[in-house]
Amino acid sequence: MMNFRPILLIMGMLLATLALSMCIPAAVDAAHGNPDWQVFAVSAGLTLFVGVALTLTSSSGRVSLNVRQAFVMTALSWLVLTVFGALPFMFSELKLDFTDAFFEAMSGVTTTGSTVITGLDSAPPGILLWRAILQWLGGLGIIVMAIAVMPMMGVGGMQLFKVEAFETGDKVLPRAAQISVALVGIYVGLTTVWGFLLWWAGMNPLESTVHAMTTLATGGYSTSDASVGHFNSWTIDVIITAGMIMASLPFLLFFQAMRGRPLDIWRDEQVRGFLTITASIVLLVTAVLWFESGMAPLQALRFAAFNIVSCLTGTGFATDDYNLWGSFALPIFFFTMFIGGCSGSTTCGIKIFRFQILYSAARVQVRHLVQPRGVFIPYYNRRPVSDEVIVSVLSFFFVYGLTFAALAAGLGMLGLDFVTAISSAATAISNVGPALGSIAGPAGNFQSFPDAAKWLLSAGMFLGRLELFTILVLFSRTFWRG
Amino acid sequence: MMNFRPILLIMGMLLATLALSMCIPAAVDAAHGNPDWQVFAVSAGLTLFVGVALTLTSSSGRVSLNVRQAFVMTALSWLVLTVFGALPFMFSELKLDFTDAFFEAMSGVTTTGSTVITGLDSAPPGILLWRAILQWLGGLGIIVMAIAVMPMMGVGGMQLFKVEAFETGDKVLPRAAQISVALVGIYVGLTTVWGFLLWWAGMNPLESTVHAMTTLATGGYSTSDASVGHFNSWTIDVIITAGMIMASLPFLLFFQAMRGRPLDIWRDEQVRGFLTITASIVLLVTAVLWFESGMAPLQALRFAAFNIVSCLTGTGFATDDYNLWGSFALPIFFFTMFIGGCSGSTTCGIKIFRFQILYSAARVQVRHLVQPRGVFIPYYNRRPVSDEVIVSVLSFFFVYGLTFAALAAGLGMLGLDFVTAISSAATAISNVGPALGSIAGPAGNFQSFPDAAKWLLSAGMFLGRLELFTILVLFSRTFWRG
Repeated sequence: MMNFRPILLIMGMLLATLALSMCIPAAVDAAHGNPDWQVFAVSAGLTLFVGVALTLTSSSGRVSLNVRQAFVMTALSWLVLTVFGALPFMFSELKLDFTDAFFEAMSGVTTTGSTVITGLDSAPPGILLWRAILQWLGGLGIIVMAIAVMPMMGVGGMQLFKVEAFETGDKVLPRAAQISVALVGIYVGLTTVWGFLLWWAGMNPLESTVHAMTTLATGGYSTSDASVGHFNSWTIDVIITAGMIMASLPFLLFFQAMRGRPLDIWRDEQVRGFLTITASIVLLVTAVLWFESGMAPLQALRFAAFNIVSCLTGTGFATDDYNLWGSFALPIFFFTMFIGGCSGSTTCGIKIFRFQILYSAARVQVRHLVQPRGVFIPYYNRRPVSDEVIVSVLSFFFVYGLTFAALAAGLGMLGLDFVTAISSAATAISNVGPALGSIAGPAGNFQSFPDAAKWLLSAGMFLGRLELFTILVLFSRTFWRG
Repeated sequence: MMNFRPILLIMGMLLATLALSMCIPAAVDAAHGNPDWQVFAVSAGLTLFVGVALTLTSSSGRVSLNVRQAFVMTALSWLVLTVFGALPFMFSELKLDFTDAFFEAMSGVTTTGSTVITGLDSAPPGILLWRAILQWLGGLGIIVMAIAVMPMMGVGGMQLFKVEAFETGDKVLPRAAQISVALVGIYVGLTTVWGFLLWWAGMNPLESTVHAMTTLATGGYSTSDASVGHFNSWTIDVIITAGMIMASLPFLLFFQAMRGRPLDIWRDEQVRGFLTITASIVLLVTAVLWFESGMAPLQALRFAAFNIVSCLTGTGFATDDYNLWGSFALPIFFFTMFIGGCSGSTTCGIKIFRFQILYSAARVQVRHLVQPRGVFIPYYNRRPVSDEVIVSVLSFFFVYGLTFAALAAGLGMLGLDFVTAISSAATAISNVGPALGSIAGPAGNFQSFPDAAKWLLSAGMFLGRLELFTILVLFSRTFWRG
């Protein structure tokens, strides 16, 4: 039997943190004279109570998890944060039902950015801030997980990113504290810088705080139904585009840069790949908007850069309804959704390093066909890649495809049209935010979806965020016998 | 430098065969008093001339190819047959331009079944027969290739299907003759049986011949714009559904069945997988048609079975416009397109054995995550599968996805709407036939597509039919350096 005590202890500490976070929107609402501050106070009280209860009853000597406990802990963290994070949505003046509140919170903690709320422009400030906080915490959580826990789990090729400081046999967490603290510092620092930049560019304090948090989390929750398009500002578009790119880089490299190795960022194959792929798609879309749709070239570059970067990194902001850019846009945005950023960032999707490994494996495959007796080894970041990693990455890709197909077929069964069904499935599993088409596209939202579809999409976001296998493992018999 | 003489010799023999095949529609048109017989006579003359010229000038002692020659031979065979097979379409009263004729012929020899011809019901009999002959020859070609050549090439995991009789080091063809003759016999026999069954069910001799040929080739060219729906016959639907299933099984197992091991068919994991997957999807669609759309249960089963089997096996017949079955149908038909039948049959698509290997690899992956130090080996058909095969299959899946995405994005750029673009890309690469939506769906055709889109789709069919890597290899530098 698995020992749940350390897991419950961590849940307790997470809930206590969440409860403290709820005090921020409470204070903001109170300052605005909005009665919703009570909602946050009650939610905080409830969350803190459960959190403290769990912490006290599960307190054990030291917090150290084995691999199986780490899987359970990861899955439970996101679920527990979602359930308690949903409380303010239910209690506030928005009066979301449990399905909608759960969807909104799941879309938050997974940094997806799909929303069921219309009328953001007139929503209470506390709620707008709370959505941003959920994404920001979710982003922070995934960075720490991706660096400290997942490489050790070996999920979908993440074993490539093992950091020596964390390698202590089968045990997680002991020496992770130091790097984790540094990462939190970097994350807080970048958010602060972007917050000031956005404020300087003309946003009010609430708007700049929300957008800085959801940019660095590549989350995409905004303060307006029109997303960042609401501000219609060159400066803001440039600042946020740069922020989304920053947030898609491996945060560990920022840490190394601070320790005096700034060039590591440019030497990293994943960073180069990310920048090259992003630039290629942006230039392609710019060219089509310029030559085909007759947009002025600089304007085309601005719109293409912002919206493609937002889609590729899975942020989910929009400055325009790209559904209306012409027939070329939909397939490009659709496939771009799957790409994602670098591993160890806040982005989701398949991620650049997997495409690089897959491309490398396919090239070796071609050489092997020509010279069946030759031995060819794929390389990644100037190091040979083992068969184990390749099979791991390739299985991830396969399961990603399968999960996407199952989600899309399910949504079709629930009555959604083809474009909405398959793009919603893609946007959920890749944690992007808006889907395509007129219903759930950048100009719409997920409010009108049937409840079952919202649950399906919540499951998709959850699976996608935790790299599928982290969750699938929990359904295998060996896991619970083992 | 590669020795092209044996390759050109094979091209010469193929063209001579193609020229002889052209005499059949010539004779039929002449018997019907249709002046188009001259078209076939002229095309046959031209093709025979080139074929004989190649044969005579390239004649060498023995026909034996090394692996690299086999790749070139495979690619060239399909291209050469397409170009010469397109001649009658250009010369006939249909007066197709080169793009359309090439598309129609490529869709024929790859057993796809997408068409640019409207007014099939009043088309000259010779042309209808010629389309069927192209598919039938293409089907025969792929069976022989899949059994005799591709396992030796090791394309996309096909090395799993090495037949001992063919294993003579690096050399292809020497001992292949015997099995190849048997396979041709089985293919001819099944086509004859299905021809008689369809004639007995009420088709006229031309219709029954065409449909028997295109059923066994899982090609899908019909004699009517309404496809098999034109006949509106229970009996015909059942016969063709059974035929498509037969044509999706590994033909080598029929050979073994005839040699006294009929149970091998039921013992084969691929056959079981194929039947299970097909039955599951058919039953699911039947249930939705029955309960959601209110169709009578038997009618629902008939429509679901025919159209799903047709789509899954890549045949491409239709008895109804399933675009109109409700929102659930499109995603299901879309993803079903990718599945395909068994390896060693006339079907295309990703194919059942690849899904089984991928599933097996993903399961092992999950176990490995739980017990990182355990050694787990995936099995297929009660034999362990090597890492080499897994990487080979997984790379195939990745390249399939990438090619599909590139095709779909390209079609979007050329102005096709989202549904048409992505379903046309899928139908081409999987050699199905109709796409989804109102333009190129089962009730439409590809006539109105821009020329560039037709070339893109022709490339997609070609790549899909030859398992991608057979063609991609030709673009690698190592291939030509040797």
